[in-house]
Amino acid sequence: MSTIHRFIGEKNDFNWEGVDLTVFDGSDGSKYASRRLLITEEREGAKNFVFRYFKVLPGGSSTMFDKHAHDHGVLILHGHCKVKLNDQEFHAGPMDVIYVTPNDVHHFIVEGDEPLGFLCVIPNKKLLASR
Amino acid sequence: MSTIHRFIGEKNDFNWEGVDLTVFDGSDGSKYASRRLLITEEREGAKNFVFRYFKVLPGGSSTMFDKHAHDHGVLILHGHCKVKLNDQEFHAGPMDVIYVTPNDVHHFIVEGDEPLGFLCVIPNKKLLASR
Repeated sequence: MSTIHRFIGEKNDFNWEGVDLTVFDGSDGSKYASRRLLITEEREGAKNFVFRYFKVLPGGSSTMFDKHAHDHGVLILHGHCKVKLNDQEFHAGPMDVIYVTPNDVHHFIVEGDEPLGFLCVIPNKKLLASR
Repeated sequence: MSTIHRFIGEKNDFNWEGVDLTVFDGSDGSKYASRRLLITEEREGAKNFVFRYFKVLPGGSSTMFDKHAHDHGVLILHGHCKVKLNDQEFHAGPMDVIYVTPNDVHHFIVEGDEPLGFLCVIPNKKLLASR
């Protein structure tokens, strides 16, 4: 069913109505990272893609040297980071768009004193498994 | 190949390096609308989803009573709108997230004096056709 999740967040700490917070303990190789699932199959019935918001605190990073069969579409929403993609390395900031190809090693490392926040879209994993 | 499109836009007029503008003439039922394709299969090789930025000027709207087999994941980036979804009607603004289910009639109508800008993600249509 079509749904709206209203924004109820603040600068550098985004939040939406009807959306839970998952704080990672670092066992996945991330540091100071949390996630809010915005559009999912389980809740919204979305069969094709998943919308996730990640927040990473200063000094932290996404999962180190992450690599998998699904791709990522990323839109940086707040803060700055260093992005490592295979052998490339570059800086990214608000509203930059990054596409991470399947099986590319990727790592987002916070730069500066502000939390990093980004939208990260992935395909529905059931869909991937069916191919 | 993994790609970054750096943000080179301004307030209420977003733009990215390496991304073209398509201005719609209204023959699709939209009014004062334009689009920038951010992540595509043709350019980035993205097989699962497409990232698009739409800008609609004050007084304008997305395609009227649009309805189709693919779903939309929407993140409002700037401006305000009225959203019509089947028989529902509500207001949306910056950072609100909207999921539009397949085959739901939808129409985004700009409210106020600022251009509306939103990210709209759709599944890759080849992927949909293959199911």
